[in-house]
Amino acid sequence: MPRNQQILLDNRPEGEATEANFRLVTTDTPPLQDGQVLVRHHYLSLDPYMRGRMNDSKSYAAAQPLGEVMIGGTVGEVVESRHPDYQPGDQVVGMGGWQEWSVVDARQPGLLRKVDTTHVPLSYYLGAVGMPGVTAWYGLVRIIDPKPGQTVTVSAATGAVGSAFVALAKARGCRVVGIAGGPEKCRYAVEELGFDACIDHRQHTDLKSMSAALKAACPQGIDGHFENVGGHILDAVLLRANTFARVALCGMIAGYDGQPLPLQNPALLLVNRMRIEGFIVSEHMDAWPPALKELGGLVAQGKLRPRESIAQGLAAAPAAFLGMLKGQNFGKQLVRLV
Amino acid sequence: MPRNQQILLDNRPEGEATEANFRLVTTDTPPLQDGQVLVRHHYLSLDPYMRGRMNDSKSYAAAQPLGEVMIGGTVGEVVESRHPDYQPGDQVVGMGGWQEWSVVDARQPGLLRKVDTTHVPLSYYLGAVGMPGVTAWYGLVRIIDPKPGQTVTVSAATGAVGSAFVALAKARGCRVVGIAGGPEKCRYAVEELGFDACIDHRQHTDLKSMSAALKAACPQGIDGHFENVGGHILDAVLLRANTFARVALCGMIAGYDGQPLPLQNPALLLVNRMRIEGFIVSEHMDAWPPALKELGGLVAQGKLRPRESIAQGLAAAPAAFLGMLKGQNFGKQLVRLV
Repeated sequence: MPRNQQILLDNRPEGEATEANFRLVTTDTPPLQDGQVLVRHHYLSLDPYMRGRMNDSKSYAAAQPLGEVMIGGTVGEVVESRHPDYQPGDQVVGMGGWQEWSVVDARQPGLLRKVDTTHVPLSYYLGAVGMPGVTAWYGLVRIIDPKPGQTVTVSAATGAVGSAFVALAKARGCRVVGIAGGPEKCRYAVEELGFDACIDHRQHTDLKSMSAALKAACPQGIDGHFENVGGHILDAVLLRANTFARVALCGMIAGYDGQPLPLQNPALLLVNRMRIEGFIVSEHMDAWPPALKELGGLVAQGKLRPRESIAQGLAAAPAAFLGMLKGQNFGKQLVRLV
Repeated sequence: MPRNQQILLDNRPEGEATEANFRLVTTDTPPLQDGQVLVRHHYLSLDPYMRGRMNDSKSYAAAQPLGEVMIGGTVGEVVESRHPDYQPGDQVVGMGGWQEWSVVDARQPGLLRKVDTTHVPLSYYLGAVGMPGVTAWYGLVRIIDPKPGQTVTVSAATGAVGSAFVALAKARGCRVVGIAGGPEKCRYAVEELGFDACIDHRQHTDLKSMSAALKAACPQGIDGHFENVGGHILDAVLLRANTFARVALCGMIAGYDGQPLPLQNPALLLVNRMRIEGFIVSEHMDAWPPALKELGGLVAQGKLRPRESIAQGLAAAPAAFLGMLKGQNFGKQLVRLV
């Protein structure tokens, strides 16, 4: 059986996460039992939610246990199978974790899913046509539910969720305004992703400035917002929100390191009769089939072709992950493992 | 025509509202035109939303114009009518304002509504079977939507909204915990209104203490909350909220005087996948018929008999109103005008 590099969570962050929180080990993959499948991972997905799991505190998901392989989505190829539904060469998506290989019990439903790469690149099943894409779909369709002509906004606009969000919102006839970090990302948001405008939050670091930028970019106000960041961006959105505006609250990456992140003026939720709703997409499995169908169609039609940031080799995963938390990636952050 | 005492908004509050913001004047009621009805007000309703209207800032309703009669709900009796649907002696509810008499154009739909006082006292149409009752109904039924056995909480528990809320929630099989100011109100909440427990917020003035009190009173956590106050009560509720908890945001009386009222940890909305929704009941007219029907039934059955605080005479209205904002009333605050 092949040797398998793995990255474990070694210890929990105190404040900011660092590479010293992780540990790289090498093991042997165990021989297959009946019903099991050996998958060679081609790509590992790095996602902001993983930072929340590194903490021991109550979060929207169970804490990552110490000394175990970091959780994570993977795409790869079946190399050996003792399950009749899987053959060597099948391309699959699953939650293989931060390692090069995984042994999966294919009899358990939902652990592996075969994917078709005729029209969709394999890596996209970790991004645009995977969990981040479905996350964007759920927030837009089920929570914000915009009408044509309405204005919707999204923070972390050039990330995996944001790039799917804009494609889905444009398909519904919305004005879509992104918020991203730096002129290069903002240019990419408008020129390649299709945003109508993009605000550089590094140029608007306080509430007043961000609110003025939103006012300029959203002359008709904001009807729906998808929040990945929190902090002064969300405060500013509330100041510019229209009556009955909806906020899909998906991430508060600005607070992952434990700093307090108050909402300055929640009375605006009342003044504007707003709805704000937190969600985690794995709790809404009924949304996945329609979301994946629409997202796959947008990719096949060339309407959703976001960039990817690809780190090479498992050992590069911790640095790539920490960089992503600081916004150093450009589009979906992946680690190539082959 | 009778002489009519009126209270006008004379100037806007700077910070806390005072009696000097109001002015009492006496005018003549004008002669009736075709289609008009002359109503003698028996009771004027005093409600927290009026404080928001005294400000010039954007709020959930238009600002009260200076120099005009203060807005307000009234019940009374038709004294003279030039509209075929109304006869002298009819008992009616309307938005007559802070004055003793009003001349109403009965051809405009929705300005006057005849009420039946066989089983419901006339004044209750300003409280339990009026706007506050419907407000409680909408927040509980349409936003919180609790299941039997779930725990729901409400701030300003012994007010007009809170007392209707507990009757409606008990009818749905909930555990209902109130938050009110002072031991006397808490005793009344449990012994007369039917709350399972009531927390005295004067004994729990910081987040940690309020959170501990909620934990003790809600051993199964909080599934739904009706917010009338804001500030540290809402912060504490978020700390004790269960997964998928809903918050109906109806008032933030703690912030009416303009002081900042941040929400300390909005990330809990994500952690608990919560929904928080602001609303104003006059925008949901479809809710009024089923709500009034249920509320009237509860009153008729003796299951909803809240106390009232009754000030005597129009000139007493400003002091009664300001006292209510400080929680000095006991149950629905009214002014008797006859």
